[in-house]
Amino acid sequence: MRILLIGTDEPGLLGVARHLEARPEDTAMVLYPEFNPLPEFSCMTLERLLGKGIEFSESIRACGLDTSSRTVLVRHSHTGRESSLDYDTLVFATGSAPATLDVPGEFLVPMARVGCQADAARLRAADGVNVVIGSGMHLLLAVSSLMTQNLGTIEIIPHGEDRNEKHQGCLLSDTLSGMVRHHLTQCGVTIHAHDTLKAIEGGSGAVRVVTDRRVIDCARVVNAMPAAPVTYLAADAGITLDPAGHILTDTQLAASAGNVFACGGCAAFVGRDCQQPVPGSAVAATPKAQARALAAALSGEIADFRATAGAWSITFGDLTAAGTGLTPDQARQCGFSPLSALAIQFDRAHFMPDASLMTLELVFDSRDGRVLGIQGLGPSADALAGRISAVSALLAARTGDGHPTVHDVANLEIAYSPPFASAMDVLNTVGNVAANILDGIGQGVTAQEFDRIWRERESGENLFLDCRELGNAAPYLERHPDHWRHIPQGELAKRMAELPRDGRIVIICNTGVRAYEAQVTLKHAGRGDAVIVEGGMTALRQSGVEV
Amino acid sequence: MRILLIGTDEPGLLGVARHLEARPEDTAMVLYPEFNPLPEFSCMTLERLLGKGIEFSESIRACGLDTSSRTVLVRHSHTGRESSLDYDTLVFATGSAPATLDVPGEFLVPMARVGCQADAARLRAADGVNVVIGSGMHLLLAVSSLMTQNLGTIEIIPHGEDRNEKHQGCLLSDTLSGMVRHHLTQCGVTIHAHDTLKAIEGGSGAVRVVTDRRVIDCARVVNAMPAAPVTYLAADAGITLDPAGHILTDTQLAASAGNVFACGGCAAFVGRDCQQPVPGSAVAATPKAQARALAAALSGEIADFRATAGAWSITFGDLTAAGTGLTPDQARQCGFSPLSALAIQFDRAHFMPDASLMTLELVFDSRDGRVLGIQGLGPSADALAGRISAVSALLAARTGDGHPTVHDVANLEIAYSPPFASAMDVLNTVGNVAANILDGIGQGVTAQEFDRIWRERESGENLFLDCRELGNAAPYLERHPDHWRHIPQGELAKRMAELPRDGRIVIICNTGVRAYEAQVTLKHAGRGDAVIVEGGMTALRQSGVEV
Repeated sequence: MRILLIGTDEPGLLGVARHLEARPEDTAMVLYPEFNPLPEFSCMTLERLLGKGIEFSESIRACGLDTSSRTVLVRHSHTGRESSLDYDTLVFATGSAPATLDVPGEFLVPMARVGCQADAARLRAADGVNVVIGSGMHLLLAVSSLMTQNLGTIEIIPHGEDRNEKHQGCLLSDTLSGMVRHHLTQCGVTIHAHDTLKAIEGGSGAVRVVTDRRVIDCARVVNAMPAAPVTYLAADAGITLDPAGHILTDTQLAASAGNVFACGGCAAFVGRDCQQPVPGSAVAATPKAQARALAAALSGEIADFRATAGAWSITFGDLTAAGTGLTPDQARQCGFSPLSALAIQFDRAHFMPDASLMTLELVFDSRDGRVLGIQGLGPSADALAGRISAVSALLAARTGDGHPTVHDVANLEIAYSPPFASAMDVLNTVGNVAANILDGIGQGVTAQEFDRIWRERESGENLFLDCRELGNAAPYLERHPDHWRHIPQGELAKRMAELPRDGRIVIICNTGVRAYEAQVTLKHAGRGDAVIVEGGMTALRQSGVEV
Repeated sequence: MRILLIGTDEPGLLGVARHLEARPEDTAMVLYPEFNPLPEFSCMTLERLLGKGIEFSESIRACGLDTSSRTVLVRHSHTGRESSLDYDTLVFATGSAPATLDVPGEFLVPMARVGCQADAARLRAADGVNVVIGSGMHLLLAVSSLMTQNLGTIEIIPHGEDRNEKHQGCLLSDTLSGMVRHHLTQCGVTIHAHDTLKAIEGGSGAVRVVTDRRVIDCARVVNAMPAAPVTYLAADAGITLDPAGHILTDTQLAASAGNVFACGGCAAFVGRDCQQPVPGSAVAATPKAQARALAAALSGEIADFRATAGAWSITFGDLTAAGTGLTPDQARQCGFSPLSALAIQFDRAHFMPDASLMTLELVFDSRDGRVLGIQGLGPSADALAGRISAVSALLAARTGDGHPTVHDVANLEIAYSPPFASAMDVLNTVGNVAANILDGIGQGVTAQEFDRIWRERESGENLFLDCRELGNAAPYLERHPDHWRHIPQGELAKRMAELPRDGRIVIICNTGVRAYEAQVTLKHAGRGDAVIVEGGMTALRQSGVEV
């Protein structure tokens, strides 16, 4: 069998190589599409594969496709001469690249691009203003890389959020996104949240980024736009694409035309948990799994590939964000009815010198408590990755009907060494918070929601009750005598009569634990509509919400 | 219902308290057995529970039991007067304590005891020689605590290994135990591996530990013997015990007498994965799970408690050991046919400043690749705990027929952030090593086995082949010109003829990766009996094996 591989996206290369190990009588040729916005092949991967039945032609590029005759039209890079190549099987691995900015001048200045972790690793910060334009994961990767290099300053112009399909868009909930934004701001990153990009100006010397509000003289411009799949050849050949341009595949990674397969960033896959096709960029962390499936499909075996959201981790200075599975928005898109539970707790006994606060948000289905995903933030990257990986394993272990639930998270054994065995890990805590929410207790407002209702406190719709000890509450009582109430949680049962009958009670403590206890007390006393501030004052502080 | 709780082991206290929350009409009294080698109750736990239907009597102690009349004979501590207490339901939570040393003088000197993590946290190092006598987990906990305090010196006298039921015995394989012992020795801990304890001498002033080889003047003696359950009351009452003295329970935590339950260290449970009853000390990390089961059983509901080996983590200076599930010995005891796979690899991209080598040993069944446990070592406690917790989650997620296999470990998504997405995590690597072993390739010798056959190298039975680059191999070629052979792995296929026909080839590289490649090459060339040194030179170095 003669295989033609267009593009060098990792899953394609690895999958074809794996197939050839099993079927050494087959051959494969690798070439690029004529218009290839991706970086050239990773020398290590392709170099390792050459000589194992894979040929690579750098001088010819694919410029057309005829699936009925099974030929690819190629153009010679040096002479411009066209010719045809026959294939038995065609594999698209053309990947995806950050979308264009669609503003004047973008092609006239040198611009770095971040569309994957490898791009972020290669990104060089400039000693001046580094402007990053984009949104979603690529934006996070670019900013992370620049912060690590600690050179120059960073300014962000959000752009292209409308292109963020939920699957390739934000990896974090609104709550956690708010905390990351606040952290970036504290680190000196400027986020021009309300600017609209208008143009890029300048030549190779001075570059200027022009928005509707300002002109920024910068030393580096980075395109970190959401991914756009490189599929014009497939589109021209009439192969079925999804609305964003990905080649739609089935569980055998087969496209709509016979003997044509697709994988990597240019494809969209059948989702294991989701009704919508999952774009390749959302599963970029799993090239091995796709490669295995492609190799099986090429050999005519059952591949049964179903995409799941992979685990990820990105560090911003001294704060790491990580997650696995679906965010609330992604879960909604996939047809679930998601809720989320927030817990902020020390990642080990608080008197240990390296203890730090970890924030976890567990996403689960309101109908059956099924775990859909988990995301989190914390200063200790390893400690956070450990909790995320444990849930990743839970999600991986169940397929079909037996799905892990929030109770599995609450009871999970975590291999940390507290001085006393009965201490509850932060991961168990967030599982318990979720279980409580399912049981009808523990409803809360997010930091952003608190911000809104606190600004509108004059309306009297909400009563703000601080249930901590007086030492914690005193500064707020002083600042807001008319709106900040205080009853320590231990005294609440005896002092219920002090609370006005009207108004929804909003309970605040340091991380939400005592507020939950107070909420139970209030519920037993007939105030069942009371809500807690999820994550308490700590969540407000981490989100930059000021009281 | 009137509940009598003898002992204050955490699962008993929590379980009874949980039951009373659901059935506030029931009452419970807590008392101690007359001869109680355990520390007195944890003030925090019991204090919190008093006033929630639990009474505690410090002045009476249980000294007898009559299960047919459902009475407990008690003796008043101050007067010696005896009386009876009736019960509807009896719960044994008397726990287990480090066994006696059984040598003269052990009761004449003050001796600290470590039988659980709480004991280890309370242990105070002395500014002199601290002698630790014991084996198994208690020994590890004691040494860990002393090393953290960095005061005085530590000398270990192994004692009581014969009492180590495999379940409560060593938490590590022979390979990893050897590495921990070498690390301790490098840290200045003295291990008198071949001494036999004879007596303890001295009064409250100078204490001497006497063995068959030496007399040690010490400032602190610590009993870290394996656990012995405190069950004399149950034994006298004719309740069925296992050979080590634990109260045998069923999945309802019920003992052999009616209306008598047992939990915690004094009990032995039905195992989920094991044919043998599992002693409570082996599942000391799961008081919450036992408490939930006890509460359900007390209420007459289905408890279905089946013990599994919990996750654990112990730190020795700058090296942490952690694990979950079964060790090879424990797996054999449980009726499995275990194999283990070793991998030593950087826990992140090697050029990252905080990268360090992690050693993982995956235990799996040779018949079906089922994962039975994983243990590991490494300088980064969080990084190690994350991998252990992920496997813990895999093990927890499957019950019944669908067990996780080594392939699940090989394909697990780990939330670390390598610069390039195709990097394979050390956890995935050990899964792949295990899969290779199941496929008939990758057989190896442990560091201890290499030590033995290297000492016997004159026999000529084994040929030692270093497959690294010349720079790595040169020092060994110089030292052992007659026995150390060298062919870089990349040249092996062309230089096969240089290898003698006789003798089993033992392949060495830095961590085992290149040796595996060489082993594949040798197998294709008809030398299928070649073996690798598991973990390569790194494993030898970590185990203190010198070449």
